[in-house]
Amino acid sequence: MENRTEISSLGEFGLIEHLTRNSEIKNASTLLSVGDDAAVIDHFGRQTVLSTDLLIEGIHFDLSYTPLKHLGYKSVVVNLSDIYAMNATPTQVLLSIGFSNRFSVEALDEFYEGVYAACEAYGVDLIGGDTSSSQKGFIISVTAIGEVAPEKFVKRSGAQPNDLICVSGELGGAFLGLTLLEREKMVYQQTGVQPDLEGQATIVGRLLKPEARKDIVEFFAETDLLPTSMLDISDGLSSDIMHICNQSKTGCVLYEDKFPFNDDAKNFAYKLQLDPTACALSGGEDYELLFTISQNEYEKVKHNPSISVIGYITPENEGMHLITRGGNKHELLAQGWNHLKK
Amino acid sequence: MENRTEISSLGEFGLIEHLTRNSEIKNASTLLSVGDDAAVIDHFGRQTVLSTDLLIEGIHFDLSYTPLKHLGYKSVVVNLSDIYAMNATPTQVLLSIGFSNRFSVEALDEFYEGVYAACEAYGVDLIGGDTSSSQKGFIISVTAIGEVAPEKFVKRSGAQPNDLICVSGELGGAFLGLTLLEREKMVYQQTGVQPDLEGQATIVGRLLKPEARKDIVEFFAETDLLPTSMLDISDGLSSDIMHICNQSKTGCVLYEDKFPFNDDAKNFAYKLQLDPTACALSGGEDYELLFTISQNEYEKVKHNPSISVIGYITPENEGMHLITRGGNKHELLAQGWNHLKK
Repeated sequence: MENRTEISSLGEFGLIEHLTRNSEIKNASTLLSVGDDAAVIDHFGRQTVLSTDLLIEGIHFDLSYTPLKHLGYKSVVVNLSDIYAMNATPTQVLLSIGFSNRFSVEALDEFYEGVYAACEAYGVDLIGGDTSSSQKGFIISVTAIGEVAPEKFVKRSGAQPNDLICVSGELGGAFLGLTLLEREKMVYQQTGVQPDLEGQATIVGRLLKPEARKDIVEFFAETDLLPTSMLDISDGLSSDIMHICNQSKTGCVLYEDKFPFNDDAKNFAYKLQLDPTACALSGGEDYELLFTISQNEYEKVKHNPSISVIGYITPENEGMHLITRGGNKHELLAQGWNHLKK
Repeated sequence: MENRTEISSLGEFGLIEHLTRNSEIKNASTLLSVGDDAAVIDHFGRQTVLSTDLLIEGIHFDLSYTPLKHLGYKSVVVNLSDIYAMNATPTQVLLSIGFSNRFSVEALDEFYEGVYAACEAYGVDLIGGDTSSSQKGFIISVTAIGEVAPEKFVKRSGAQPNDLICVSGELGGAFLGLTLLEREKMVYQQTGVQPDLEGQATIVGRLLKPEARKDIVEFFAETDLLPTSMLDISDGLSSDIMHICNQSKTGCVLYEDKFPFNDDAKNFAYKLQLDPTACALSGGEDYELLFTISQNEYEKVKHNPSISVIGYITPENEGMHLITRGGNKHELLAQGWNHLKK
């Protein structure tokens, strides 16, 4: 009888590892392959960074509360975020879409308005793609291309013990935005009462129209700061710091009281009786940059209001921990958003 | 009231034109954008070629007669074909897949076996991608990256009056393979009789496991031949020569008696009472290269058994025509495979 292993038994990262385990590099130009935010290829000294994402209706977005224009904007931005997470500058995108016949030309126009708005905002060119019909739902595939000066790309695997762990912006907002919209959708479906999003523009915006941290990568260039490792937070802080630690073969300590929160987000969390820290650790899609720097570089970041130092890297055998406000030490768990794992 | 324009009223090429009409190039490195087999970006003299395809179950492939390994192979090859169609050499691919829970790890392994077989055969590296669950069916997005010597990339738009129109290999086979498999599927569904594919390995292979014409691009390099325009035949000869003529602002004359056919394919066409010429003109997925060369270069191709000269380019106002075996002149019609147009 044929073996059947459920994909959920591996999860997304396990699956990628499994499928690519026998992969061998054949081209000298392939500098960095599967397993980071983006791949890097060499062009006679200059380096090109490439990243791709597949977004599927019902899995990654819900059109009942996502305006198509926002979706177009976000589809591009989340890919650019992967390019920035390599310390590179995005230059071009390729975009493919598949759509069922419930979509009209006007609907696609709205989507593309968002796509072009993102291209404009980040100075990238849409250079190609594919359009297709689908039997069901809306499917989006984006590939982003960027460039980086030789040897300046930043992998996930370079963190060293005693490095400081830094994060840009604020955490947990996108998750709270999602929670709010899902709740309002349910209320609407059950009662017909229109959503009450009053005063929640921040967290809803964080989910529906995220931005990539172009400014942080520009700040690195201006201050001549090269992080030792970096990624963008798409699965939640907990999962994502684990990616850095696992690939760098280190441990870490995070301090709960250093986590940056937006006040609106925090208040909304309390209103829902949610712990903001849990939202930051487990909620995905913040698209903030999580990076490590040598302690010698602390002076460079300490006056930047967009950067918070939230912990430090330890040797691998010390494990991964969170120090709570109360001073307790907890082991970190990968609670992030992993849509393939049960 | 909101306007609703059906996408089918534009068709695939009309839709792409519509959606990208306001696109402006912002990066000097963007040499060639939307509208060809692939885009071209510049890296300080060296040129990178990029192409992407989205393949959706039920639209582009039918898993009831497509082995997953073949599907993996084909998904890569059809993208490499776009890179060769720019006169470039593919070096890397990015691959994203979405799949419902009816797929097991073993099924994905089979698919990836085909992917890696194609990477091996063409010397390219799989450097990244994305995996996702889907609510329904199997979704594949492939982006291929290649390189080309400065200014040696070949667009669709460079054909000149009096250029010779050439095609590699043989035509119509993939369409006949599809016809055969669709017929056998219907017979099986209605009667339970297992498919009779005896003696039809060639055309079935053409559909399920096509190859990209690496050899032809190598031949161009060896003989120092630079086509004036080129694309790979994915929609059918008729549609595809129209792409060249429309983008080059020319007309053309094709000679039916010069079309290259495989004997097995021809015999099978007669058996089904199909006209092999119609299969070549309207049947897609042959992945042969269709290109134009200056008449001065004829000596270079005339002894290559894999290249047939099938016509010539005319001024635009002379239109696009086919001269039949009987000597009649017919206007060419775009009858190719256009899955978005009704």
